[in-house]
Amino acid sequence: MFTPMMTTPLTITSLMHHAERVNGLVEVVSVTADNPRHRYTYRDAFKRARQLANALKTLGLKPGDTVGTVAWNDYRHLEIYYAVSCSGMVCHTLNPRLFPEQLEYIINHGEDQWICIDPTLVPLIEPLKDKIPKVKGFIVMTDEAHMPDTKLDQVLCYESLIAEQSDQFDWPELDENTPAALCYTSGTTGNPKGVLYTHRSTLLHCYASICADVFGLSIKDVALPIVPMFHVNGWGMVYSAPMVGTKLVMPGPKMGDGETLCTLINEEKVTVSAGVPTVWLALLNYLQQSGSKVESLQRITSGGAACPFVVYDEMRSKYDVDVQIGWGMTEMNPLGTYNGNCPPALESLPQEELDQLRLKAGRPVFGVDIKIEGEDGQELPWDGKSSGAIKVRGPWIINEYFHYDKPTLDDDGWFETGDVGCMDEWGYLQITDRLKDVIKSGGEWISSIELENCAVNHPDVAEAAVIGLPHPKWSERPLLVVVMKEGKTIDKQEMLGWLEGKVASWWIPSDCVFVDELPHTATGKISKKDLRVQFADFQWSE
Amino acid sequence: MFTPMMTTPLTITSLMHHAERVNGLVEVVSVTADNPRHRYTYRDAFKRARQLANALKTLGLKPGDTVGTVAWNDYRHLEIYYAVSCSGMVCHTLNPRLFPEQLEYIINHGEDQWICIDPTLVPLIEPLKDKIPKVKGFIVMTDEAHMPDTKLDQVLCYESLIAEQSDQFDWPELDENTPAALCYTSGTTGNPKGVLYTHRSTLLHCYASICADVFGLSIKDVALPIVPMFHVNGWGMVYSAPMVGTKLVMPGPKMGDGETLCTLINEEKVTVSAGVPTVWLALLNYLQQSGSKVESLQRITSGGAACPFVVYDEMRSKYDVDVQIGWGMTEMNPLGTYNGNCPPALESLPQEELDQLRLKAGRPVFGVDIKIEGEDGQELPWDGKSSGAIKVRGPWIINEYFHYDKPTLDDDGWFETGDVGCMDEWGYLQITDRLKDVIKSGGEWISSIELENCAVNHPDVAEAAVIGLPHPKWSERPLLVVVMKEGKTIDKQEMLGWLEGKVASWWIPSDCVFVDELPHTATGKISKKDLRVQFADFQWSE
Ligand SMILES: Nc1ncnc2c1ncn2[C@@H]1O[C@H](COP(=O)(O)OP(=O)(O)OP(=O)(O)O)[C@@H](O)[C@H]1O
Ligand SMILES: Nc1ncnc2c1ncn2[C@@H]1O[C@H](COP(=O)(O)OP(=O)(O)OP(=O)(O)O)[C@@H](O)[C@H]1O
Ligand SMILES: [Mg+2]
Ligand SMILES: [Mg+2]
Repeated sequence: MFTPMMTTPLTITSLMHHAERVNGLVEVVSVTADNPRHRYTYRDAFKRARQLANALKTLGLKPGDTVGTVAWNDYRHLEIYYAVSCSGMVCHTLNPRLFPEQLEYIINHGEDQWICIDPTLVPLIEPLKDKIPKVKGFIVMTDEAHMPDTKLDQVLCYESLIAEQSDQFDWPELDENTPAALCYTSGTTGNPKGVLYTHRSTLLHCYASICADVFGLSIKDVALPIVPMFHVNGWGMVYSAPMVGTKLVMPGPKMGDGETLCTLINEEKVTVSAGVPTVWLALLNYLQQSGSKVESLQRITSGGAACPFVVYDEMRSKYDVDVQIGWGMTEMNPLGTYNGNCPPALESLPQEELDQLRLKAGRPVFGVDIKIEGEDGQELPWDGKSSGAIKVRGPWIINEYFHYDKPTLDDDGWFETGDVGCMDEWGYLQITDRLKDVIKSGGEWISSIELENCAVNHPDVAEAAVIGLPHPKWSERPLLVVVMKEGKTIDKQEMLGWLEGKVASWWIPSDCVFVDELPHTATGKISKKDLRVQFADFQWSE
Repeated sequence: MFTPMMTTPLTITSLMHHAERVNGLVEVVSVTADNPRHRYTYRDAFKRARQLANALKTLGLKPGDTVGTVAWNDYRHLEIYYAVSCSGMVCHTLNPRLFPEQLEYIINHGEDQWICIDPTLVPLIEPLKDKIPKVKGFIVMTDEAHMPDTKLDQVLCYESLIAEQSDQFDWPELDENTPAALCYTSGTTGNPKGVLYTHRSTLLHCYASICADVFGLSIKDVALPIVPMFHVNGWGMVYSAPMVGTKLVMPGPKMGDGETLCTLINEEKVTVSAGVPTVWLALLNYLQQSGSKVESLQRITSGGAACPFVVYDEMRSKYDVDVQIGWGMTEMNPLGTYNGNCPPALESLPQEELDQLRLKAGRPVFGVDIKIEGEDGQELPWDGKSSGAIKVRGPWIINEYFHYDKPTLDDDGWFETGDVGCMDEWGYLQITDRLKDVIKSGGEWISSIELENCAVNHPDVAEAAVIGLPHPKWSERPLLVVVMKEGKTIDKQEMLGWLEGKVASWWIPSDCVFVDELPHTATGKISKKDLRVQFADFQWSE
């Protein structure tokens, strides 16, 4: 057959090869349990990845096998990523914040054969020892001096393991559709489900994510991925930074610690970072308390959950940092839409409207095709108000969950995201809810996310959730559940009054309850599933 | 088979679909023969592309057929690009500056069935009428009012043709390796050769080219592709701009006209542009004469030939425009290396060294794998001095020339670019020569490009070329051939003296000749092939 252009496969191996040759001198800085500030270069990283690949081979691991990781963002985790995926194996990142039963389920379901563990996380896995029979052994990510005592069997020391290996390795030539990494969903709406990324999906996602209107990563940047590498591969930054030659700064176990983050940003001159809203609240909190600044920081991505206005507003006004919203999910590698640069035609909007726009989920990145479907299965117009189920399609969208017995796609081949939202004529997506959290009152939809955002903007409110509960007259009505900031109290009337004028009057929750804390999932999201169970017997007052 | 992620094909159709939905409101501005400033939106463009696709179908054209274009950069050419490629046909862009015999050869070799012609270019094709028997007819890109008289047969008017068609069209589902566009090389070193781009190669090139460190295209930008759409698809900007939502400004037949370019830049607020060095010299010339400014312009790409220092220097110092060098070729879609943002580690170099660095061909864009090969076939180190044949590999590099009887790749599957250069440890490529132009004196290489750049920096020199001629003692020695600026004269001694201290002493050409003009190719490059013929009988003086 006549093949006019080369059909060179899109593999992570090609990315590694490029990064080593072209960006090999760029630094990677990490915080680890055994070193508060480890630094070396991409060239060093990939050399050690080859040593590790040799080591994995001597352990009997073969292409197609799965290697688990229970680890933070640091250089050894980076080496494991590349060594495993480029050997044709699957790198299965496990979320250490999952409940033990969930971890057990996922390790078994993912068929992990070896597990690489951060020394600080060994105690987490020890209790599972006898419940994960397919696991042949553990590699503890440290040197001999820092090896923990452990009850686990078949335990190897990472540094000793690779020390004896050659730094030459012939990476196999892989088809671009070879699986590279496995990640399970957060389990917010049900059991975690496995998503198996391929080399192709990872690379294309990488290309799309570094565009000027998305992460806009440059060799001039210094990136701090706070989002964990066990959370959809750290939104791909551990791939895109070496691809571009961006210096990488990784916070290790300190990802939730405002002080460490602030120090890293200032000392390493971080320009760009990414994380969930909770992290930004922690950083803001620290900045306010300490009076510190983050002068090198230009822009941050907030994703994974709706971003509170205060994060967007204070980061910009007090610290001159642009907050960019991303929307996506495990099934999307994760990027779907991004709110980066704004079309010039909209820049002249009044500040308040512009703020609203900038807090939306953003516009589809090229590669992700989106449609909004009404309850009748018809596509809805992009008019800024018609809300419906969000469906997606594209080269880094899931096709089939890993070992799953139900169909993943709809009859037309679209993936139903489980989110509900609307699109405007510029392609700005607004997420109004999760399908499972939707509140339907008197036949009309109420956005729980918008109500929550509005409640959280009250200066005394720490966290808020809205759930729909059965109602005799309206079929369902919203209930507002609020956690106050320490030492603050307000009453029901004041809380509900705060919402007046800010949302449609019939959206105002029919009641409000104050609690000490809300249930959360392993990725730190409010678990409305648990909240609904908790309020199953709630009675409306009238 | 278990396919974990969607394998949605990378097609230009998907790009068009995205651009229409997400960036549909963005403007496209063109200069045409029938309208000095036509403007509409991407939405309008793709609607008309569907009308055109219907029209092509009624003409009997089928997937796999080739449609030629002899046209400038304007909106109708844009519509043709998408209508043809997304119908599964091949869009063959013809360079109107080719000699008639070359045009005839390429039209026949490319098997063009219909040709779309700009009204101003009809006279160019008329003489070929009886020599291109496979061509079934011509579509003149204008409305009835502007139709030229012509001796061609089977001539249709573009606007009338599409006016009667529906704006609904079911684009075929294409495999991503389907050919999309055909372009012939410039014929600088021999006969033009056909390169057939696929949907996949075009899309991947697009992704790579919009990176922050390459074109860095954003929805905030306004792009003016001056490089013709018949010259490697205008370096892909007619794809990447709609992909990102960048407003597109197209100069039509006025691409060489400094005044029009300046007016377009200022009135349309152009931020980014791309073209060959000649165009930048024309623009600089106009700016100097008129005293005009180009305040919106932030950065320009210069590629296709070595960029004179004066372009880089004056654009930056007088007009605050960053000049970014790109290196590539028809066989590479065209992008190979790019000199955009500079690694922070190099930013502190002394200005002179930094200038030298910024005038190199740049660093490999992700996707292009480069190696430098010595005469013994061994790979050379990236040490900033080991010069050899540049070979490339990657998903938008040619695999086989169109209808060609010699192998296109070397035995290991690399494409030999025909260029000679060296790489440094940061991956900066320096082009020293074309393989066919290499001068070897006493066993050592002399860079004709470096000598030419140096000669052209003399304030009175308009153009300069260096060729190697046989020499009894040194086997070959360089001859400098110079065109002076109007009204200027200097003598041989002064000219050669100018080079002293700027290049190694044994590089100084053994003689210098002044001529009124140099021979050029259809893309405006100096034709050293013709120059060598012209000086075949030259005798060294001593
Ligand atoms: N910018 C955002 N605004 C609002 N919600 C967001 C945003 N980004 C992500 N989300 C929410 O996070 C979800 C994706 O999260 P993830 O893939 O981690 O698992 P999950 O959906 O929480 O868990 P599970 O699918 O197991 O129930 C999205 O479907 C969406 O509901
Ligand atoms: N930045 C640059 N600096 C120096 N030379 C360049 C640069 N960019 C491109 N070139 C030259 O242009 C060539 C590519 O041009 P193109 O594909 O238009 O055809 P051509 O090589 O001139 O013609 P042919 O291959 O038919 O002889 C490269 O091989 C290189 O020699
Ligand atoms: Mg989910
Ligand atoms: Mg060539």
